[in-house]
Amino acid sequence: MQMLFRYNWMVREEWYRWCEEVEEKDLLVDRTGGVGGILHTLFHIIDVEWSWIRLLQGKSDFQENFQEYQSLQKVRELDAKFRKEVEQFVSAWEESMDNQLFQDTMPDGRIVTDTWGEVMRHAIAHEIHHIGQLSVWARELGKKPVSANLIGRNLASK
Amino acid sequence: MQMLFRYNWMVREEWYRWCEEVEEKDLLVDRTGGVGGILHTLFHIIDVEWSWIRLLQGKSDFQENFQEYQSLQKVRELDAKFRKEVEQFVSAWEESMDNQLFQDTMPDGRIVTDTWGEVMRHAIAHEIHHIGQLSVWARELGKKPVSANLIGRNLASK
Repeated sequence: MQMLFRYNWMVREEWYRWCEEVEEKDLLVDRTGGVGGILHTLFHIIDVEWSWIRLLQGKSDFQENFQEYQSLQKVRELDAKFRKEVEQFVSAWEESMDNQLFQDTMPDGRIVTDTWGEVMRHAIAHEIHHIGQLSVWARELGKKPVSANLIGRNLASK
Repeated sequence: MQMLFRYNWMVREEWYRWCEEVEEKDLLVDRTGGVGGILHTLFHIIDVEWSWIRLLQGKSDFQENFQEYQSLQKVRELDAKFRKEVEQFVSAWEESMDNQLFQDTMPDGRIVTDTWGEVMRHAIAHEIHHIGQLSVWARELGKKPVSANLIGRNLASK
């Protein structure tokens, strides 16, 4: 569990550095698929990860608005702000938490039950999926995307 | 570990059904990013997953050639053929296997060591990443992609 979160954070950091080499207008332009843009995707990943961690802890969630985060700098600052809490939660994760239940109320009023293990893996898969979208848009810009490889990152030794 | 493999298989099956509604030429056309096409991506996912499972077991690997799998039907048949062995390995997975070592020889002759836990998570992330690319190409075709949600799939109950 922890390894895949650490993989995501490492890949995300590399995408920030990749973004530094790209003009800001290209990071902001509307694109086909996903949430529709490179910086918006990174913002969305940060927001969703933090939101799930908050919800599992029974804490208040709030929907950040991307309109207020229209620069790489601002997105990275938001990430740094949220990361502390997320890392703390992930590093304290124990296998026994996998089966704890989380009840969520859907927009239509239905109440659904997920396990914490499902929610955590949902958050992991959510980020990897959106990073896959960035890799296509990178190629459309004529740029090599960040490697999605998990092996070779020395992730087992921590 | 197992949950994320089962998630991938479920999502992959939904992409096959999605493909049934798309003209075969659109599945085969060259696209920007990834391995360059929808069916080729599904083929690549199958090949890579099976190859890693084979390598961990010390069994021979072989590189299938996509030229021989230019239809949805053929790709699904390959998947069915490989899946049996992959499922058997994944369902027998125990946490103690996480730290077993796997030595791999790189194209330049270097020998690198990964843990089995890294390799398995690499295979998981590999598929999710490529499925993210499919979701962009789906929108380019004007079609709604398969949901990447992990929650709501009843994956905790197995």
